Amino acid sequence: MAEIEMGQNLKSLNDAIAQANRSGFQKHHVFVLDIMGSPGSGKTTLLENILPVLTKELRIFVIEGDLATQNDAERIRKTGVKAAQINTNGACHLDARMIQSEIEQLDLSAIDLLIIENVGNLVCPISYDLGEDLRLVILSTPEGEDKPLKYPPAMLHTDAVVITKTDLAPYVDVNIETMKTYIHQINPKVQILEVGKCNGIYAANAVITYLEEKIAARKG
Amino acid sequence: MAEIEMGQNLKSLNDAIAQANRSGFQKHHVFVLDIMGSPGSGKTTLLENILPVLTKELRIFVIEGDLATQNDAERIRKTGVKAAQINTNGACHLDARMIQSEIEQLDLSAIDLLIIENVGNLVCPISYDLGEDLRLVILSTPEGEDKPLKYPPAMLHTDAVVITKTDLAPYVDVNIETMKTYIHQINPKVQILEVGKCNGIYAANAVITYLEEKIAARKG
Repeated sequence: MAEIEMGQNLKSLNDAIAQANRSGFQKHHVFVLDIMGSPGSGKTTLLENILPVLTKELRIFVIEGDLATQNDAERIRKTGVKAAQINTNGACHLDARMIQSEIEQLDLSAIDLLIIENVGNLVCPISYDLGEDLRLVILSTPEGEDKPLKYPPAMLHTDAVVITKTDLAPYVDVNIETMKTYIHQINPKVQILEVGKCNGIYAANAVITYLEEKIAARKG
Repeated sequence: MAEIEMGQNLKSLNDAIAQANRSGFQKHHVFVLDIMGSPGSGKTTLLENILPVLTKELRIFVIEGDLATQNDAERIRKTGVKAAQINTNGACHLDARMIQSEIEQLDLSAIDLLIIENVGNLVCPISYDLGEDLRLVILSTPEGEDKPLKYPPAMLHTDAVVITKTDLAPYVDVNIETMKTYIHQINPKVQILEVGKCNGIYAANAVITYLEEKIAARKG
């Protein structure tokens, strides 16, 4: 019983800080995106491919979350977009306080779009509000078409599911239509977007258009 | 401070139950394997391929851990091996008490090898002792060659790392030798095993031989 109360207290504390983060973002008109998914699902690769387009219209900053290494922040900086790296030293998700500490060092009035790439994990990050406006859950075809059924919270608590590595589907015996059916079985309302290499080029138009629409809707 | 103490108390409680599980296993000469890795890394597929061989010599039982669904236990039963499914209903790992509840329903004297397939997660399961003799961490090539550096605890607290889907490496721009170098950079002593499709056949000999040796060493 004590365990449950402690869990609820920590959750309430996180939610309160997330709400404070959200107020700060709204005050400065910063749109905040939280990207979640398993290790290697293709979160950073997706960013590498959408940032060069999005950065033409928007002032973007990326916060990368990982247990260890600066690898992902370095990958993002190579696209010309500024990035910071949070190392959780073992924790399986980012929390609102980590984001709070990070944004205290930023000039939010100089940012239109803040992208948070969470720790690679299909379970833990889902239950932590960071103060974001929009969530994307990334699911790659090599993970297998039954994963939506096995990880329901990730399908339920997101605005969109991005299926990545669609070009690998035939090599990993995955039927993308079946994967989509399973996603909608858990969450009939969630938007599904598909990205992958097409004739050697990474095609991420679906995600770019989706984000542009969501950001425009928020402004309008 | 209260949070940390609570965490340590829960950890101590888990370790005490794990130790009780271990005593029960030793009393009945049950060798216990804990398999961990990300969603879709190929844990169940590995089992589907090694069980038909191992079951010729050993009486095996498999415990499957997942947030939801009975899918994996059903896949295991199709190989002719008995299996039970634990649904964690949101928890990102199995704990020693879940295993304790499960083994209370089993006749341990009729089991030589108990295999526990943990919840798909490269972070949470690592810090929970279940009472096992041996740990395997599964890492698939589509997850990317840098993952050992980004998830050090998973590399440190295992007996062996199994690289799966080696046949997909060229399609996902992964150099297996680099991946192995990174694994050994974090844990120079860990054993690395490789499995994947070879001419259309899933080759898992490395894992079968490794397990047979470990089980024989324990008996001898």
